[in-house]
Amino acid sequence: MEELDDLLEINNLKIYQNRSWFSFSLDSVILASCINIPLRCKRILDLCTGNAPVPMILSTRTEALIDAVEYQKDVYDLALKSIKYNNLESKINIINDDINNYYKNMESDTYDLITCNPPYFTNLDKSEKNDDIHKRIARHEITMELEDIFKISKKLLKNNGTLSLVHRADRFVEIINLYKKYNIEPKRVRFVHSHKNDDAVLFIIEGTKNGKPGLKVLRPLFIYKEDNSYTDTIKNIFNKGVLDDTKEL
Amino acid sequence: MEELDDLLEINNLKIYQNRSWFSFSLDSVILASCINIPLRCKRILDLCTGNAPVPMILSTRTEALIDAVEYQKDVYDLALKSIKYNNLESKINIINDDINNYYKNMESDTYDLITCNPPYFTNLDKSEKNDDIHKRIARHEITMELEDIFKISKKLLKNNGTLSLVHRADRFVEIINLYKKYNIEPKRVRFVHSHKNDDAVLFIIEGTKNGKPGLKVLRPLFIYKEDNSYTDTIKNIFNKGVLDDTKEL
Repeated sequence: MEELDDLLEINNLKIYQNRSWFSFSLDSVILASCINIPLRCKRILDLCTGNAPVPMILSTRTEALIDAVEYQKDVYDLALKSIKYNNLESKINIINDDINNYYKNMESDTYDLITCNPPYFTNLDKSEKNDDIHKRIARHEITMELEDIFKISKKLLKNNGTLSLVHRADRFVEIINLYKKYNIEPKRVRFVHSHKNDDAVLFIIEGTKNGKPGLKVLRPLFIYKEDNSYTDTIKNIFNKGVLDDTKEL
Repeated sequence: MEELDDLLEINNLKIYQNRSWFSFSLDSVILASCINIPLRCKRILDLCTGNAPVPMILSTRTEALIDAVEYQKDVYDLALKSIKYNNLESKINIINDDINNYYKNMESDTYDLITCNPPYFTNLDKSEKNDDIHKRIARHEITMELEDIFKISKKLLKNNGTLSLVHRADRFVEIINLYKKYNIEPKRVRFVHSHKNDDAVLFIIEGTKNGKPGLKVLRPLFIYKEDNSYTDTIKNIFNKGVLDDTKEL
């Protein structure tokens, strides 16, 4: 069932989704709202874009041109429909391709910023697998592996360009090691906790291609208050599409 | 000037310090209060113990025997005086030695837990250097290097023993890599922020020798309220010497 839902209050941004496949997630909203956008950012690439929440939110924060790649044709069609509905065709270019194929055909040093809300589970992790093919591809490393994002970013990012990801807290060490392996230096991380007394569930990490070492651990983000309503910070993100202390560098 | 100060309200624990050298730090209190103590913990080693705040606080939480090594003779003398004042001679054994010498003479697989609040600055970082020799050794990697702690722990920890450190947030990536290099798997990290809207200043990390991958990022610790008084969590630590959600595993 395809539905048109609110994405952000600001700009009255709407998003088409098929709820029997998956909905855009809070993770994508947090990613797009909480990352720094590099100075003089001209081109952005969003990998595994799904129905395109990340590029749509980013389009409210920057004048940069945004390419966004989605593997699944029918999800790509939904993304395209949302882009048209919001009149964002001149800012967002949705591409229906395998990211590993896309990157081969692109020139090196093209992007100032690469973003990704990747599948969180490895392909091996069968217990977590969902029956629906759309959900399976969105959640599991089936059509790509985590390391591909780094390989692609190493090639396609300009020198000092930024790779910004959201991922599950329990894969943090692995991801730090991949950043280092591909010489993209982790510079900022923000942990996301459901409630203030909970362990982190997610993190947003930003690294700079060929950057100098020195990671900042930013103030944490809490999603829910004790009564399970959203915190003011999260309400504000859904409203404005940007975290109060996020810099436009 | 040597003075006798309160260390913890619980057990009426007191500590001798020479304030012209350095005082025991909040960092040591947080380390000793926030870490998990392994199940059936028999022996603990505290490296770079200074005037021994870490072993003294740990002694209120466990029946394990605690060895604590301090390089500087006059700081060692102060630690010894505090141990005697608090009648902790049967639980804490203070050793005046270079940790790199101590470890050579010790048998492998001796300790269940190794703790350390190490010097935070590299020896090269001259701008941060303090004139007083006691402060210099406590703050800079002069008599030892960060990597020594891992080399020592790899030898002296039992299989599945724990290495728990407090360090500056900006050295987090380096420390994660050292844990991995010495096959001590990072299992829990807690970031410490001065105020709730600040970047992290410190972190407490606990890793298991030959453990399985999987890092938990625990709820953050905030030191000060907006009015710069201590948070209830910190007051509670100073009172009881243990964080409410810290487990005795």
